[in-house]
Amino acid sequence: MSESATAAAHSPSILPSYLQGTWWAPENPQRTTDVLDAVTGEVVTRVSTEGMDLPGAIEHARTVGQRSLGELTIHERALKLKELALFLSEHKKELYQISFRTGATQRDHYIDIDGGIGTLFTFSSKGRRELPNANVIVDGQVEPLSPDGTFIGGHIYTRLPGVAVQINAFNFPVWGMLEKFAPSFIAGMPTIVKPATPTGYVTEACVRLMVDSGVLPEGSIQLVSGSARDLLDHLDYRDHVAFTGSAGTAQTLREHPNVLQNGVRFTAETDSLNAAILGPDATPETPEFDAFIKSVVLEITAKAGQKCTAIRRTIVPNAQVDAVVEALNARITERAVLGDPSEKTTTVGALASFDQQAEVGKAVDRLISAGGTVRLGGPDGPKPERGAYFPVTVLSFDDARTPEVHSVEAFGPVTSVLGYGSVEEAIELAALGSGSLVATVCTHDPELARQFAVGIGAHHGRLLFLDRDDAKTSTGHGSPMPHLVHGGPGRAGGGEELGGIRAVKHYMQRTAVQGSPDLLTGVTGVWHQGAAANVATRAAVEAGEAEHPFRKSLETLRIGDQFASDLRTVTLQDITDFANETGDTFYAHTDEEAATANPFFPRRVAHGYLLVSWAAGLFVEPAPGPVLANYGLENLRFITPVTYDDAIRVTLTAKQITPRVTDEYGEVRWDAVLHNQNDEIVAQYDVLTLVAKTWPMPEVEEADATA
Amino acid sequence: MSESATAAAHSPSILPSYLQGTWWAPENPQRTTDVLDAVTGEVVTRVSTEGMDLPGAIEHARTVGQRSLGELTIHERALKLKELALFLSEHKKELYQISFRTGATQRDHYIDIDGGIGTLFTFSSKGRRELPNANVIVDGQVEPLSPDGTFIGGHIYTRLPGVAVQINAFNFPVWGMLEKFAPSFIAGMPTIVKPATPTGYVTEACVRLMVDSGVLPEGSIQLVSGSARDLLDHLDYRDHVAFTGSAGTAQTLREHPNVLQNGVRFTAETDSLNAAILGPDATPETPEFDAFIKSVVLEITAKAGQKCTAIRRTIVPNAQVDAVVEALNARITERAVLGDPSEKTTTVGALASFDQQAEVGKAVDRLISAGGTVRLGGPDGPKPERGAYFPVTVLSFDDARTPEVHSVEAFGPVTSVLGYGSVEEAIELAALGSGSLVATVCTHDPELARQFAVGIGAHHGRLLFLDRDDAKTSTGHGSPMPHLVHGGPGRAGGGEELGGIRAVKHYMQRTAVQGSPDLLTGVTGVWHQGAAANVATRAAVEAGEAEHPFRKSLETLRIGDQFASDLRTVTLQDITDFANETGDTFYAHTDEEAATANPFFPRRVAHGYLLVSWAAGLFVEPAPGPVLANYGLENLRFITPVTYDDAIRVTLTAKQITPRVTDEYGEVRWDAVLHNQNDEIVAQYDVLTLVAKTWPMPEVEEADATA
Repeated sequence: MSESATAAAHSPSILPSYLQGTWWAPENPQRTTDVLDAVTGEVVTRVSTEGMDLPGAIEHARTVGQRSLGELTIHERALKLKELALFLSEHKKELYQISFRTGATQRDHYIDIDGGIGTLFTFSSKGRRELPNANVIVDGQVEPLSPDGTFIGGHIYTRLPGVAVQINAFNFPVWGMLEKFAPSFIAGMPTIVKPATPTGYVTEACVRLMVDSGVLPEGSIQLVSGSARDLLDHLDYRDHVAFTGSAGTAQTLREHPNVLQNGVRFTAETDSLNAAILGPDATPETPEFDAFIKSVVLEITAKAGQKCTAIRRTIVPNAQVDAVVEALNARITERAVLGDPSEKTTTVGALASFDQQAEVGKAVDRLISAGGTVRLGGPDGPKPERGAYFPVTVLSFDDARTPEVHSVEAFGPVTSVLGYGSVEEAIELAALGSGSLVATVCTHDPELARQFAVGIGAHHGRLLFLDRDDAKTSTGHGSPMPHLVHGGPGRAGGGEELGGIRAVKHYMQRTAVQGSPDLLTGVTGVWHQGAAANVATRAAVEAGEAEHPFRKSLETLRIGDQFASDLRTVTLQDITDFANETGDTFYAHTDEEAATANPFFPRRVAHGYLLVSWAAGLFVEPAPGPVLANYGLENLRFITPVTYDDAIRVTLTAKQITPRVTDEYGEVRWDAVLHNQNDEIVAQYDVLTLVAKTWPMPEVEEADATA
Repeated sequence: MSESATAAAHSPSILPSYLQGTWWAPENPQRTTDVLDAVTGEVVTRVSTEGMDLPGAIEHARTVGQRSLGELTIHERALKLKELALFLSEHKKELYQISFRTGATQRDHYIDIDGGIGTLFTFSSKGRRELPNANVIVDGQVEPLSPDGTFIGGHIYTRLPGVAVQINAFNFPVWGMLEKFAPSFIAGMPTIVKPATPTGYVTEACVRLMVDSGVLPEGSIQLVSGSARDLLDHLDYRDHVAFTGSAGTAQTLREHPNVLQNGVRFTAETDSLNAAILGPDATPETPEFDAFIKSVVLEITAKAGQKCTAIRRTIVPNAQVDAVVEALNARITERAVLGDPSEKTTTVGALASFDQQAEVGKAVDRLISAGGTVRLGGPDGPKPERGAYFPVTVLSFDDARTPEVHSVEAFGPVTSVLGYGSVEEAIELAALGSGSLVATVCTHDPELARQFAVGIGAHHGRLLFLDRDDAKTSTGHGSPMPHLVHGGPGRAGGGEELGGIRAVKHYMQRTAVQGSPDLLTGVTGVWHQGAAANVATRAAVEAGEAEHPFRKSLETLRIGDQFASDLRTVTLQDITDFANETGDTFYAHTDEEAATANPFFPRRVAHGYLLVSWAAGLFVEPAPGPVLANYGLENLRFITPVTYDDAIRVTLTAKQITPRVTDEYGEVRWDAVLHNQNDEIVAQYDVLTLVAKTWPMPEVEEADATA
């Protein structure tokens, strides 16, 4: 553990903030807030933001942070996330040690700390595999807007010009930060982190490691330890605020004039009353029933049930209510051991604060008053004397439509079991949550899965379908995956986080762009048909008057570099030979009468595969050179059939160049168009190749041909 | 003109609303609002919503509308939009006639009425070409979430379960409605239209035609004529509100508790201070300069400058300010004829109301007080005596950073010319608008275009790059295209409309789905690798024990129907022959030593095109049958090289079936996987085919093989 992190975690000095590249704390603040150890009640640290220069921090992000991040490409930033993740992995035990004081167990640390680091790895990989190595991302296809092709349209994403502010909840001090940091960093936006006070000392320790790693560009991260009520006063439409926490705080933030009038981009992810639905087919003797019970117990005990995704409503067929309650109680009784989270035998730790303990008690009392029956645990259930513990609690309701069970959230190890009569009723009950982050549907029937998806999909941000096939491999109801969106409509806040590259785009503006092919090629960095090209014909190449683009390494290759082949005539014999050699004797190539009767063909036609194979023969440069391999092909469309005695030619143009940051080569996407002797378009597609950065290239130790 | 539409347009009775399938107006309302002819000042109609059953209308949409739209697929709904567009086209002259009373000229009608109808056609076409013929849309690729493939993830869109409310501005009574109606209808959401009162009688006439067309399902459209201040009181997170109008009204709506707390999906498109920037290269002798002047004049005279996209800030090099002002004045003087919009010689009509006339006057006075110099027109310029006219006005400012010129909008035929010193300054000036719908950048230099795109992209919803190549074919600065997003950050409201299928998705919820391949196949309607398959091997097909899936028409083909070929060995001779016949003599196929030196190949390898050609030979059914053509191929990736003496086999599985609503065939997407003799994956891709709905198929008159 670094010396300073030790100090932050173990002495009741003021927890520092990291602002404008410096660790800062008020010297003699008039008021401070004590932060208590959730297990021992000792003072861990104190926070105060008296005298903090928030406007200066925001300006630092908008200027220094934007500039330093803008000097890197998307791939360079993505690679830095990997370096950061490796550094944090080496130091994660330091974070585990500090996190025990929040009441979290070692299992909980895996979710928060390892989960956060894993998110960095995933975004690093996706950023480099799925995005261009540039700063402009093209969205979707080009739209022709004039018949002659001189006016076209498309869409680009460019990063937001302000600061990404994250306001996080207490339950995931590390993951909550990193899952927002990763996509905004790749997008190129600097971040200000505002963690929740009860566990902010863990976030502080993690930010300290991030800073100490030396990986992050200047101004790309800042940390506010303590309250920052006027943060939004200084933001506008250039900035982005991602909030995780209670619906009440989300509303307060949404009411801020800078959100209402000045266009601050605000997104919220609030905890919701998530459901797990046991399908009518998942009776107690099926493997699904068992998987369901395990899942519910896991979700209400991990993080002591303090997960915005935890299962609050366990919705089961009326006939199974008692069986489910019994099975839950049995498993909880067997498995749930409340106690000091740093003890290996403990499976359920303390709540994150004594305030939370009181809140959960109040919520459970409300549920009981509304008609809930305590089937296990409850406010008077057994629990360790010292520390912010709450017994694992199972309630049931005779009336599944009791409003409170769909609106009052006990943010702890608590779930309520509700019965339903029909699939329609189960769907209605799930929707009574008024919008949730996630629901589990436990069924082995694909048709039932479809009905539930259509019925409850629009009320949820995520649906987990649980059955015997994925019960063992599932990543679980409660775990947002970096690949998939996290967030949900209505009560869940209406926001969307994660989801792979979707999340990166949340920190960028989508802008429609219109213009001539030349100008849009300049804007997007992707060559468009109709734009200027640097043409090398076969004749010019053979005469030594032009260089074939396949002879250019990434040092000299430019988008718009083009090769234009000669025409080659297709004979009936060619078609017949190809049919015989490949085995593709489809009647359109072999039977004149049947081919002519087909609605799309004039008579026997050449195979589409013959055309693309010949095209490769027409554009190839046979000798070794910087083009190392053709690793794929995309968006191939056959437009005009080619019959015998027609001729084809190919035009191949460098369309997009993506040098890899860690390899001696990169991807080059080529626009390929086949024309016939009448200049009609026969086919078009993209050819994907790997091209060396320099030629000859340095010795390559190991190669990975996949994109 | 239909009798009822005549009545609405010409008599001062109460303008009816269309609610719950019936035309309705209050019988003896206590208070009504007169709507005046913008040219004559006569009363056109009166509005009142006293006693209107708004909750009933919302419930009607959520129940009847949702049900009737849900009975149709996306393609069926898209086709209805085309039928509707054809019907409106036949009747558009009736709408022209009524619209003259709003002050609009015939040229303006083309924008509003023909533009609206054109938007229906575009969405109808895109809905059928780019979306599945289903009710669930899959978003993006499948994500493997477990190493063994038993747990995967993805994303689906399903329609929102409530009502799409549109609250429109007065300037586009037809387009404003149809551009929102088209995407929400395709998504499957019922609509309630609330037009602005001053021109709502045109919207009423259009809705009457839409209802009379008989095309629209029950409950899919309702109309509120007159004010509906409590509309949002009845909405929640299931519903969507799309607002177009002033920033002030947008803010009031955003402050509604149902938006702040209850998750109503609210999007706004508000008018903004859009800029046109003359690039430093576009000096007066260039074609760009001329195109720029024409564009600015068009944008401030069309609709008498009442377009949220109009050019309010004309940003030009300091050296060109006077030349630009002179050129603008000359063209306006020559071309702008204010007068009765129904006169053919008129090019600039009246503002839509006398209130608007007063508002524009006040805004111009503020600009003058702030330092603006009137270079043409102005409050005292010449204009027709009767009617809500305003002279076409050009202002200039000595100080380009005068705050008012970047914040005060004169919503009429008014623009201000501002000078800049450097490209950086031009970018800063554009950004002072604090977020705009659109900017024109006039340059012939792709590198300048790139600099402007990166500099101002994130401040804009759309950028038009204007030069000599697209000046004639450009659809213009002011015209949102259905293909491209419309909306912008900050002052422009922060919303996003149009943009092709992007707009449809705004009326749907994106939900992450996780589960086993079988369950996700059920949920998405798209077959996933690892899901159950109905396998026909070559041996079983030849023995008559299984049917080859290529022998099944859409009547019997099901996703998961699979053909599995035998292995076929590739010899060195095969590779050599293929090289010679196709001409693809790339060294990796022909030169053992060079191939071995390549980082990706073990020795000479088979061409990728050989592999896919052979695969076709392995899976083909040669005789005529329901599979009519292979029209394309997607996402081909070569994974493992195949060298001589290796063998390959192919597995082909029906992945997605899209029957066309208007043809006797549909698209079938097949998952193709090639394995080698060691069961390693060699390549994978999607094969796109056209398959008959029945076999034998009825006589096909005309065929269109494009997707």
